[in-house]
Amino acid sequence: MTIPTIHDIREAAARIRPYAIRTPVMTCGSIDRRAGCRVFMKCENMQKVGAFKFRGACNAVMALGEEEARRGVVCHSSGNHAQALALAARIRGIDAHIVMPRTAPAVKRAAVEAYGGRITFCEPTLEARERTQAEVIARTGATEIHPFNNTRIIAGQGTATMELLEDVPDLDAVIAPVGGGGLLSGTAIAAKGERESIRVIAAEPEAADDAARSMATGVRQPPRPPTSIADGLLTAMSELTFTIAKRNVEKVVTVSEAEIIDAMRFVWERAKIVIEPSAAVGFAVLFSGRTGLEGGKAGVIVCGGNVDLDRLPWQK
Amino acid sequence: MTIPTIHDIREAAARIRPYAIRTPVMTCGSIDRRAGCRVFMKCENMQKVGAFKFRGACNAVMALGEEEARRGVVCHSSGNHAQALALAARIRGIDAHIVMPRTAPAVKRAAVEAYGGRITFCEPTLEARERTQAEVIARTGATEIHPFNNTRIIAGQGTATMELLEDVPDLDAVIAPVGGGGLLSGTAIAAKGERESIRVIAAEPEAADDAARSMATGVRQPPRPPTSIADGLLTAMSELTFTIAKRNVEKVVTVSEAEIIDAMRFVWERAKIVIEPSAAVGFAVLFSGRTGLEGGKAGVIVCGGNVDLDRLPWQK
Repeated sequence: MTIPTIHDIREAAARIRPYAIRTPVMTCGSIDRRAGCRVFMKCENMQKVGAFKFRGACNAVMALGEEEARRGVVCHSSGNHAQALALAARIRGIDAHIVMPRTAPAVKRAAVEAYGGRITFCEPTLEARERTQAEVIARTGATEIHPFNNTRIIAGQGTATMELLEDVPDLDAVIAPVGGGGLLSGTAIAAKGERESIRVIAAEPEAADDAARSMATGVRQPPRPPTSIADGLLTAMSELTFTIAKRNVEKVVTVSEAEIIDAMRFVWERAKIVIEPSAAVGFAVLFSGRTGLEGGKAGVIVCGGNVDLDRLPWQK
Repeated sequence: MTIPTIHDIREAAARIRPYAIRTPVMTCGSIDRRAGCRVFMKCENMQKVGAFKFRGACNAVMALGEEEARRGVVCHSSGNHAQALALAARIRGIDAHIVMPRTAPAVKRAAVEAYGGRITFCEPTLEARERTQAEVIARTGATEIHPFNNTRIIAGQGTATMELLEDVPDLDAVIAPVGGGGLLSGTAIAAKGERESIRVIAAEPEAADDAARSMATGVRQPPRPPTSIADGLLTAMSELTFTIAKRNVEKVVTVSEAEIIDAMRFVWERAKIVIEPSAAVGFAVLFSGRTGLEGGKAGVIVCGGNVDLDRLPWQK
């Protein structure tokens, strides 16, 4: 596993250009006033499948050789990465095998199936997921596309920040949420590759603060039992993404569940965009007064907008 | 009362430029596929106060002479126009008197007060509202700014379409919702003033179909008792706005309450923008198959995004 460079991100940008949406960069006066700085929102909630995940998955799928591609791709995930991989594979005309626990919500199965993914169910343990994925690979020869511990995935995710900096070159900082660290790593490499002085800040729920603890101790820390509403950020970083973060990320700012929900509602009400709780973590950090960005210009990667509209976090 | 021209709209555009947001024009593949044509969303939900209403109010307030302005402005409204007028007046540094029934929801009072509006309460009848407004005018000398039966208001609302056509000049049609007809009138004058061949289509709830009945009969029809969820569209057109619509609007397409709610949810889910029910009416028309726009390019004025996030229309 090699650390991707700015060149990998440039290649990824060219590779995904025909398929991915160049998402808008939006601004909102109410958000600026509350954050105390100018905020530029890179709206990956408006990306295909409603999340930045399509960038990495598309890069990984399109980069496969013909022979390799023909055997398909596989991942064990039930979230946005699974949908993104299914869609990228469908665009290339190859199979995407998605290993998913039997207990996954019906809405997640339906989403993967809508993009043509072939689901293999398994027991809801990590061991069962990995064994089932190994079986799929043994049977089909499919290539595993890990959601973040993968050079091409990281390079693909970095293209969001590359576009953001093309649109707003003089940002003081870029803020990205951190779960497994794929988005954060790509963001950091893109930002530092464009301009070494730019600050990269990670946003993390207090209730899933393994990145903050890992950065504080310099040693990768195990995750706590996942409890945050920001369900895209429950995974712990891999050795690869932690290595990249250690080199490039200035700090991790953590926020409470109440801060996340409050920020999410504020963004819906004022910016009029639909963002998921994981995306609200970045805004909660901007509103926390703990960024040191007052008076400056901050980019924030709005990582996704996939929400259950029947039940919003602030509703009883 | 004179019918505004494209020149009035150009003047309005110059007048409000320092204060109003040039809202983005957005697109969404899922919406295009469902509508069967390319759809360009003029996002007035991202305008100040969350609705196009700020354009007209700002134009009307900024166009007042010094002497007139000093005595303030007044309207009887409890919706987006009241907030818009309060904000425009605050920017100019003058008083905005808002006459509001005692029964208006607390959230609407709070919104007007947040923009510095001075509320005068009255009984919840049209007669009481008009009498109370007359008393405010007698006491203060304030100028009435009617929400739609006003040349400058109409000209201001037209600036949204002018900007839309600057961004996307080759639209086949522009769709705007119709209530009192201020937005529709401004839209029609702007569109026809830019290019005579452009089609202007009005979008209206079946449950508040006075515009459709008026256009069908050629005579202004009284409103039915208002029942639509699209609470920005319950007012009937005035003689002024009906005259403009008769000359410039090709047809009124009506949609059911179920179609409105379904379209609203679809836009939230796919385009990831927060739109209010009145704005969803335009999308419901696009999805109805009754526009004759298949394969073409349609602009839609997304009139606002002010929604009670505690209770969404599709929730029990």
